[in-house]
Amino acid sequence: MAGSAKIGIIMGSQSDWPTMKHAADVLAELGVESEAKIVSAHRTPRRLYDYAGTARERGLKVIIAGAGGAAHLPGMVAAMTSLPVFGVPVKSSSLSGLDSLLSIVQMPGGIPVGTLAIGDAGAKNAGLLAAAVLAAFDGDLAARLDDWRAAQTAKIDEDPTD
Amino acid sequence: MAGSAKIGIIMGSQSDWPTMKHAADVLAELGVESEAKIVSAHRTPRRLYDYAGTARERGLKVIIAGAGGAAHLPGMVAAMTSLPVFGVPVKSSSLSGLDSLLSIVQMPGGIPVGTLAIGDAGAKNAGLLAAAVLAAFDGDLAARLDDWRAAQTAKIDEDPTD
Amino acid sequence: MAGSAKIGIIMGSQSDWPTMKHAADVLAELGVESEAKIVSAHRTPRRLYDYAGTARERGLKVIIAGAGGAAHLPGMVAAMTSLPVFGVPVKSSSLSGLDSLLSIVQMPGGIPVGTLAIGDAGAKNAGLLAAAVLAAFDGDLAARLDDWRAAQTAKIDEDPTD
Amino acid sequence: MAGSAKIGIIMGSQSDWPTMKHAADVLAELGVESEAKIVSAHRTPRRLYDYAGTARERGLKVIIAGAGGAAHLPGMVAAMTSLPVFGVPVKSSSLSGLDSLLSIVQMPGGIPVGTLAIGDAGAKNAGLLAAAVLAAFDGDLAARLDDWRAAQTAKIDEDPTD
Amino acid sequence: MAGSAKIGIIMGSQSDWPTMKHAADVLAELGVESEAKIVSAHRTPRRLYDYAGTARERGLKVIIAGAGGAAHLPGMVAAMTSLPVFGVPVKSSSLSGLDSLLSIVQMPGGIPVGTLAIGDAGAKNAGLLAAAVLAAFDGDLAARLDDWRAAQTAKIDEDPTD
Amino acid sequence: MAGSAKIGIIMGSQSDWPTMKHAADVLAELGVESEAKIVSAHRTPRRLYDYAGTARERGLKVIIAGAGGAAHLPGMVAAMTSLPVFGVPVKSSSLSGLDSLLSIVQMPGGIPVGTLAIGDAGAKNAGLLAAAVLAAFDGDLAARLDDWRAAQTAKIDEDPTD
Amino acid sequence: MAGSAKIGIIMGSQSDWPTMKHAADVLAELGVESEAKIVSAHRTPRRLYDYAGTARERGLKVIIAGAGGAAHLPGMVAAMTSLPVFGVPVKSSSLSGLDSLLSIVQMPGGIPVGTLAIGDAGAKNAGLLAAAVLAAFDGDLAARLDDWRAAQTAKIDEDPTD
Amino acid sequence: MAGSAKIGIIMGSQSDWPTMKHAADVLAELGVESEAKIVSAHRTPRRLYDYAGTARERGLKVIIAGAGGAAHLPGMVAAMTSLPVFGVPVKSSSLSGLDSLLSIVQMPGGIPVGTLAIGDAGAKNAGLLAAAVLAAFDGDLAARLDDWRAAQTAKIDEDPTD
Repeated sequence: MAGSAKIGIIMGSQSDWPTMKHAADVLAELGVESEAKIVSAHRTPRRLYDYAGTARERGLKVIIAGAGGAAHLPGMVAAMTSLPVFGVPVKSSSLSGLDSLLSIVQMPGGIPVGTLAIGDAGAKNAGLLAAAVLAAFDGDLAARLDDWRAAQTAKIDEDPTD
Repeated sequence: MAGSAKIGIIMGSQSDWPTMKHAADVLAELGVESEAKIVSAHRTPRRLYDYAGTARERGLKVIIAGAGGAAHLPGMVAAMTSLPVFGVPVKSSSLSGLDSLLSIVQMPGGIPVGTLAIGDAGAKNAGLLAAAVLAAFDGDLAARLDDWRAAQTAKIDEDPTD
Repeated sequence: MAGSAKIGIIMGSQSDWPTMKHAADVLAELGVESEAKIVSAHRTPRRLYDYAGTARERGLKVIIAGAGGAAHLPGMVAAMTSLPVFGVPVKSSSLSGLDSLLSIVQMPGGIPVGTLAIGDAGAKNAGLLAAAVLAAFDGDLAARLDDWRAAQTAKIDEDPTD
Repeated sequence: MAGSAKIGIIMGSQSDWPTMKHAADVLAELGVESEAKIVSAHRTPRRLYDYAGTARERGLKVIIAGAGGAAHLPGMVAAMTSLPVFGVPVKSSSLSGLDSLLSIVQMPGGIPVGTLAIGDAGAKNAGLLAAAVLAAFDGDLAARLDDWRAAQTAKIDEDPTD
Repeated sequence: MAGSAKIGIIMGSQSDWPTMKHAADVLAELGVESEAKIVSAHRTPRRLYDYAGTARERGLKVIIAGAGGAAHLPGMVAAMTSLPVFGVPVKSSSLSGLDSLLSIVQMPGGIPVGTLAIGDAGAKNAGLLAAAVLAAFDGDLAARLDDWRAAQTAKIDEDPTD
Repeated sequence: MAGSAKIGIIMGSQSDWPTMKHAADVLAELGVESEAKIVSAHRTPRRLYDYAGTARERGLKVIIAGAGGAAHLPGMVAAMTSLPVFGVPVKSSSLSGLDSLLSIVQMPGGIPVGTLAIGDAGAKNAGLLAAAVLAAFDGDLAARLDDWRAAQTAKIDEDPTD
Repeated sequence: MAGSAKIGIIMGSQSDWPTMKHAADVLAELGVESEAKIVSAHRTPRRLYDYAGTARERGLKVIIAGAGGAAHLPGMVAAMTSLPVFGVPVKSSSLSGLDSLLSIVQMPGGIPVGTLAIGDAGAKNAGLLAAAVLAAFDGDLAARLDDWRAAQTAKIDEDPTD
Repeated sequence: MAGSAKIGIIMGSQSDWPTMKHAADVLAELGVESEAKIVSAHRTPRRLYDYAGTARERGLKVIIAGAGGAAHLPGMVAAMTSLPVFGVPVKSSSLSGLDSLLSIVQMPGGIPVGTLAIGDAGAKNAGLLAAAVLAAFDGDLAARLDDWRAAQTAKIDEDPTD
């Protein structure tokens, strides 16, 4: 049992991990524990049912789901839990992730998926958004998040020619 | 129990029926029995599991699934049965069905969905394709299908100015 | 001072309200208090700075921002607060909201906006997602949200021909 | 004469074979015999007429057709036989297969082509879908198909960090 | 036998005539005889073979072909005659003719189709382009074409506020 | 003075030549003389006026124009001569030639440009289409064109696995 | 001779005036004199040469050009004058102005066109941008422009439910 | 204090510099002084306010802003100054800059951004357009700009086969 993880990160296949790792990494930087699993809507539908069905009782507060192409994982997990679900469109080989994006974001009214940008930036931002959800109810984390942001701002030099 | 229906037609919502009815109609013209049900991947995921899980034993040979927007129904039913699944992208309100099309057709290797055109023509063709599957093993139906085709050809006048 | 509102709903112009109202309505159904304001990134940039800068101290937990075309409001409010921000692409007159969607969702790494579908469905889902964030820390609301979901499921008839 | 092949795989040019080979390979894994031929709608229209016209009598049950760009092969073979036809959009050099996809999937009502994803995954899935058609009337093959699926599921590890 | 017609205008269905009529009309204005027929690549493939196969011997110099959606008619007639073929993408119901355009224009090397704009303007221009082909070898027609152009220019007022 | 050239090939910049060379090459294979020049609508507008204005009197029968991005050359030369103009969209660096294609094909009614596919295949086909125009009035060339086509067909092997 | 007009507004056809009028109107509100003319790149290329060639000497400081479809007017006028040129993509009938936008904005290096949004908003903004150019060198106009902006801001109510 | 710079060049991140450098370079060629800074709408919103708020008083006449993805910098700086703002869509990793383009160009009526082409050509043209603005009020610069243009024209050889 995952126990202490607050954020679940799932993805449709092993090949999504180099993208989704950015979510795990930024959560670790912020001191937020996460768990990462491969759960395929299409190839392991049972695992998906089990994962979504037990997510709240296992202590998860947010689920981050990444998938590519006809990306059904974020929407299907959102269909099976009322926890907040954030979706990351993984860049696809032929349509550059536009298919992934539309498959995730265009959910019908009633079942929300908060969708991030295509690819690495989206995965990183899914981690930050999940942290922001926790931080809305955790002043310490909110402070760490603001520090992380301030450090990001500080790193941005004014002179592009350097 | 549906019993005699060979073709199952499912759709994500009541509003898809005016499109999907074209599949039922053409099957009826060809003398093929079908059943139509609303099964939403997102709003009735249990119903989807039950429907897909019992499809083969209930005698279905082909499943036709229509949905719009982030259209996950065809792919999810294909994930839960090895029967042939044909998908119909229903025209969506903002992106004209391009989102529906990409969400249905861009399935990952391993889980096929045979996808038809967006909208009414696609639904009609899903019915014809399902009939063609049965006809591959049913000479009488093959003859009726060929007659239907011949009648379609005969109806096409040569003179556009009439 | 807004005081008791937990969810802030902002939009770029008066004309976005018929869309964004769906967020306010679903929050009201769930018993979650929200406030709605017009805050234009382009036409009232000062108001945006003030709104974003005081959001957390005024007790907001989530901000929902809707805009169309070159839709900068969600991203800019996300740049100025570390609260969770959800973006709703409002359907635009020439490109049907594809421009709104890409302008909102394709945020750079570091500043997340959880993006919903184009138009009414997206606004409704932004409300539901904001409620889900609160519900992750509020068992009563979680129960109300699950009831809302169950009622939604129950409303879905199986027979499309009715 | 091909004789025992149940599935015909055709493609517009030699350069489509690395894609279409995935259909032949998965059929071979499932113990289904197929034949592969180059039949160009544009450069060998006679060959196309002959191929389509004799397909049923030669014992074919399903035709898989792959093509790129203004991809007319799947639609034209479907125009000349009432056997089920599945189309594979081959990735094109300038528009990444979006042209191929739309040219194949947007068939008018009356002439169906069941369309798969762009590229290798689509070709593999065309093979699986053709097998599913045969399996609907062949319990042994249905069992082999289910085994293939189960093996696919079993291969999916839960831990992405391995 | 058509006899005196120099330009053949064909289209996939009766519903294309309101568009394609613009080609016939401009040819009539220029005193060029044309014939118009419905020839469907998908629903009357035999008629297509006969039409294309006898076009040159019947005295046609140019073929104009209009079709919508997965528009295969222009490319298929070009595959069966070496006469110049001009294609007109008819506006489609769901994708506004982008599918028609890509299906016509993206022909593989070896089989050319000169493609015009989507819809009425494209049909009119197909007529003008066909006339230009004849006019390259007919000084009288070239003069009439130049007069037509000059009249078009003369009609363009300088003041938009009139 | 070009004198004997029947086909003029123009392009917007030196970098278009590797694409446009395919038009010149296929014309040479067919024994049709062509001339190739750089004429930029944007950078050498005077040269464009001179080229278009003298084209017919210099004996040209067809003009082939290739350009990329906001590709105005084909349309502008068509605006200044009533000779048949064929346009070749050159693949652009950021939008893969979709911008080039739309800039060339979507001409307003009154000024036709027969547009070919994006890139090398389009350039080759522009050459073939120009030859087809000449061949409509030149039986010898028509025979050579048919031979070229037959040779193309003959080269297409039936077996993709060779 | 136009004399006192500082801003020239040109458009490809009479039908563009309802869009382009928004540029003239906002300039009039700001007290900037403009002239409006129909100048078609395709149908009146001579008029275009004359207009562009004399623009600077006639006292124009900025040219605003609107066109739709394969919109060549802004780019061609920019090719023939070194005055600042702003382009307005007029909404087209089939592709909603995406063709107009790409035809105007994707200019090659060396010939700039500053492009505004598709349709009415773009025309209004072209007027404002032209005024901003003059205002950079005219303190009074800069003050009027700032007042116009402030009035725009003041009109934006905070309460969307009014 | 920048002092003598007339043109401000800003960009969202260090990685935009290789693109935006083309604006600085062409301005230098024309003898126009510019300053370049990194100002991120999302990561340094304070710096953006300060930059835009003091631009006119520091002597800037034009601001060039480049950004990629959900590119908000050009529109936000335009919201905070009435100086002319030109936007450069930087090519993005997944959608090739189409997202950047739409995020910049589709501004609402009231806040103009003159948008250039995606990538290097757009940056170069932003520099040329900024110079054209200055040149409208500076005869010497106008002459240098015309010389630059003439040199550009002169460099274009007529023979592509060289």
